[in-house]
Formats: sequence, C-alpha cells, structure tokens
Amino acid sequence: MYGPPATARTFTHSQPFPLESGETLPGITIAYHTYGELSADADNAVWVCHALTANSDVADWWPNTVAQGRFLDPRRHFVVCANFLGSCYGTTGPASNNPATGRPWGLDFPRITVRDMVRAHQLLARHLGISRVRLLAGASIGGFQCMEWAASQPDFAERLALICTAPQISPWVAALNETQRMAIEADPSFRSDDPAAGRKGMGAARSIALLSYRGSTGYNASQQDREPDAACFAHRVHTYQQHQGEKLEQRFNAHSYYRLTQAVDSHNLARGRGSLPEALGRIACPTLLVSCSTDILFPPAESELMARYVPHSQVAMIHSPFGHDGFLVESDQLNELLLDFMK
Amino acid sequence: MYGPPATARTFTHSQPFPLESGETLPGITIAYHTYGELSADADNAVWVCHALTANSDVADWWPNTVAQGRFLDPRRHFVVCANFLGSCYGTTGPASNNPATGRPWGLDFPRITVRDMVRAHQLLARHLGISRVRLLAGASIGGFQCMEWAASQPDFAERLALICTAPQISPWVAALNETQRMAIEADPSFRSDDPAAGRKGMGAARSIALLSYRGSTGYNASQQDREPDAACFAHRVHTYQQHQGEKLEQRFNAHSYYRLTQAVDSHNLARGRGSLPEALGRIACPTLLVSCSTDILFPPAESELMARYVPHSQVAMIHSPFGHDGFLVESDQLNELLLDFMK
Repeated sequence: MYGPPATARTFTHSQPFPLESGETLPGITIAYHTYGELSADADNAVWVCHALTANSDVADWWPNTVAQGRFLDPRRHFVVCANFLGSCYGTTGPASNNPATGRPWGLDFPRITVRDMVRAHQLLARHLGISRVRLLAGASIGGFQCMEWAASQPDFAERLALICTAPQISPWVAALNETQRMAIEADPSFRSDDPAAGRKGMGAARSIALLSYRGSTGYNASQQDREPDAACFAHRVHTYQQHQGEKLEQRFNAHSYYRLTQAVDSHNLARGRGSLPEALGRIACPTLLVSCSTDILFPPAESELMARYVPHSQVAMIHSPFGHDGFLVESDQLNELLLDFMK
Repeated sequence: MYGPPATARTFTHSQPFPLESGETLPGITIAYHTYGELSADADNAVWVCHALTANSDVADWWPNTVAQGRFLDPRRHFVVCANFLGSCYGTTGPASNNPATGRPWGLDFPRITVRDMVRAHQLLARHLGISRVRLLAGASIGGFQCMEWAASQPDFAERLALICTAPQISPWVAALNETQRMAIEADPSFRSDDPAAGRKGMGAARSIALLSYRGSTGYNASQQDREPDAACFAHRVHTYQQHQGEKLEQRFNAHSYYRLTQAVDSHNLARGRGSLPEALGRIACPTLLVSCSTDILFPPAESELMARYVPHSQVAMIHSPFGHDGFLVESDQLNELLLDFMK
C-alpha cells in the first residue's frame, strides 16, 4: 500500500550551529525519513513537519496519509519528514551525547526555538538538493515550523498547509505548558542526567496534554464508564490516563520533552517582524488553513485570524468530536481537503 | 457591612462514624462558621456548602455574598457554613491526628465520598437544632453536597440553589482529577506522613485545576503578555501559574487535597438510586440551577439535564468570561438571581 519503502537516514552538519538564544551547538545531526523517489529535476518533493512527540516516520504516526492516492503519495511525490531539533528520535537533543562531556546533554542542552528547528531543516533541504517543494504541510507544532519556514524563505513552498495550528502561543496554551513543566519538576529525579530521569513527572505532563488534545466533548463521548452505577471511586478514565502517561514514559525522554515545551512557548511568528499582520503578510504562496471544529488548543478562530492577513489563503474545517487530535483521527476528511488544495 | 460578626466554632461527634467505603472513623470534629442569630423558632437558617479548597468562613472566600441586602444577609438569616470532612480547615481529615497513632492520618485517612460529607453535616444541623433551612446553596462541589442532602433528606431545604455543578462526574472531569493525582504522586515526598509532604506535586495539581476553572476564553482575555514582542521563552502566565501553585502549597495539605479529589470522583447522585432521572426526581423543593456561560468543568448542559428531571426547577445563567470561576467573580449577577429566587 505504501509504494516504495521508506528510507531512514541521518544527516550530520559538523559546523557550529548558532541558536536564537545566543548559545551555539557544536554541530547537529538530523534523522529523517523519505518515501518515494526525488525526480531528476528535484521538483516533486513534499515536506511534512511533525508535532511534539512524533518522529520522522510520518507513515507511522500519521495514519492513512502516506499511501497511493493520498496527499502524501510516494508514487508521485518524494515525501520528506525530519525529526526536529531537541527531540529524541535521532536528531540532536537533550538525550544526545554532549561532545564536551561524553555524557547525555540532559538539562545542559540549551533552549531552542521553533526558528532554530526550521533553520536546521533548511540545512537538510539544501543537502538533499531541494530548493522548492510542491507542498509544505504540518499540524500543531508542525504548523508552527511550516509558517516560520514560509515566512523566512518565501520561495520554498509552492503551497502551504497549516493544520490545527496558530501564529503565536496563547496565554492559556503557555500556561498549559508551564503546568506540564511544573509536574515534571515535581519529580526530583528530573534534575539528574540519567536518560530515565523525570519519567513519572513526564507521565503526569502527558496526561495534562491529553486533556487539552481531546477537550471534554470528544473525551466524554468516548470514555463513559461501562458500569457507572458500580463506580464509586474508580472510573475507567483513571487507568486510561495512567496508561497514556506510561506509554510516553517508555518512549520519550523527559529532558527533551521539557525543552520542547519551551520551544512551543517560543512560537510567535511576529517576533522581530513588526506586527502579526506584517509577519503573516510575508507568507507568499497559496495557503490552506485547516481547523478542527472542537479543537480547544488551537481553535478555529486562530485559522480565521491568519486568513485575514495571509494574502492567498483559504480556510477549511475538519468536523470531528476529537478536538486537536482531529488531524490524526479524521484522515479521510483531511486527505480530501489536501488533494483538492494540491490540484 | 457584615452585620453581626462571624462566629467560628467546632462540633465534636465522639461516636464512630461509618463511611460509605465500609471503613469507620473513630469520631469526627466539624469546624463551622455562623453569621447572624438563629430565630427562636429556628426558622431563619440558610446553609452554604463550600467547594474543594475553601473553608467554613464563607464571608471570606465568597466575596460580596454575606452582607446586608445580599442573599446571605446576616440581619435576616442565620447563615451556616461548615468545613467538610477530609478538608484541613478544622474538620477531621488527613491532616488531623489519628487517635490510634498520635500522628497525622496522612494517607491512612480513609477515602470518603460526598455522601459521607453530607452525613457529617447532617449531624451538625441536628446539633444546632436546625431541621429545615430557608435555602440550601452551593457551587461546584458545594452543589454536589446540596443535591445529595436534598435527595437524602427531602424536607430539609425549603429552597435549593445548585450553582455551576453537575449530578455526576463526567469522564473528562474524572480524568482531570486523576491527572492531578498523577502530578502529586510524581512528587515522592507525598508518600511520607509529614504534613508538608507532596507540596510541589500539589502546586502542579493546582495549576492543572486552574486551567479547567478558567478555560481558554477568559484566561486569554485577562492574561495577555504585556510586551508580547519581547517574550521568547518567557510569558507572564508562567509566573502566574507558579504563584497560584505556591499559594495553595502554603495553605493546604496534599494528603487532604488528594483524598478530596477522590471524593469528587465519587459524586454520582444516581448511585444506588436507580437511574439518574429517578435520583433527580427525589429533589422535592423549588430548585434554581445556575450555570456560567463559559464553564468547561460543569457546562450549562449539566444544568439543562438536571432541569429535565428535578420536578420544581428553573435554570438561570451567569454571563461571564471567567468560566467555572464565574460563581466567585460575578457576585452581583448571582445575588440578583438568588434574591429573586428567595422571594
């Protein structure tokens, strides 16, 4: 079904990599996946930016998107997805070894911004010989990267799809991130440089995040107690939230998660670019702004705001009870919107 | 302004107090406040049930309600508010001494339900010689207690006001409570019996709770960064959330907070009473069901649901951007609704 198999590679940039914070990384490695073949003219690339805890294997974390007839069709496109800076899936981040000490960076890893993530991936695009893509697409924090990329390199994307995202972090979302960090900091093991540090705190943070991804409507529709009369202290959602926390504890690094929530908080397309309307005005290509009807993290009003200032933009809605997770769950609706946009 | 001064007292019930869980407390003490004078016929009492982290001094935590001309008018009414079982403001709870050990109960304190809280306060009402009140009123978990009281003792309240509340805990709210407990458990000091145990975890839990009290609309309206362009990693809400967490850490006990979130999860008016419509049908007196328009914890749909089955009920709305906190902030609107209802 997935056409040519995925290729997983790494790219190493051995020069110092200056960060927006003023600090410098001694060099960076980027893990990336590609699907399909790049044409001789390098004109069939589609680039996907991933969200908070995902990785470069977009076919794995975004079901029913990388397939024949879908908007990421490896028979037609050369699909690229790269793990972003600060993550723990092969790209340089807090779980990587600090060459100065030979041990994991841990909390010594500097704070990074969404712009740093994008500049790292711009190096990879040059390395791959890709100067222009047919589509640059991302949801959530993936959308943050896409809009930063389009604002900083306006000729890179032929088309831009910003899905369930926002042009800057709202106070409520920043408070949600701070609350997650407070939960991680409540776990004193977080302060050690052990790669397993802070796992229990991160599990609680994940549980917080999930509540914001789903919102009450979709959550209540899918999580009713099977025997409500019997439950006095116990609800099935108790074990569900714990299980979701434990799943992340098994697959992610808490120092990385912590730094990534700070990167999310850094997101402000307007920073250093005058006003938000001016910043959005830099996005030159046709842009599709997709919201999910029940998203409380980046509600439809965020897309409507962007549409007012992005010159060649249109809004579209995913109708779903699944809140912010709508972009993962409603792949049929999304595929239809994207295929139509790419015509 | 407050008429006769408040009186703060305690009532001790020295008999064993059986709990819904099957465990028994060896005896209980209840801290309570009264305002005004009980009439000779004991027919002017108004009883207020408080919410999660409040205390018996309703004039302190519910601004502009206990005052001349307000719905809790100590010149006309004998206003009673008692600290509920499991709390740490004078009533028996995890921070109290366990007579068997001479040390604080801590996590050895048994799990309690909303029904246990109500049965304790029914003992206090008998002790005070109050067999009927003009109004029984409560918001949030205070509303849980009021509806349990009205369902278990239908002739106690002449009128009932259920404010920003629900007849049973939704999966999303149960998940929110579990998430708060996960944050507390991430703090390993919570397992000790020190009264200061688990404070950092409880601070994170409070931060989680606040996000649900306000919701994004009201939060974003009041918490914009003062200099958004300057903020890269820092947002004013970061220090705001930390400050709110620290404030609770200074005034509350984490073992108590943990047990109280379990009591919240126990709330189900229908338990052992057939269906929810049957349980709500037991509420015999005129009942005012007040919602706040932006409450995401107990949204207006909860009041509408109750209104379908409580025989003599009417719904009313507080219009406010402050979400669940609307009942604390919008005291003028609330006062008008309650005074009208009590006519």
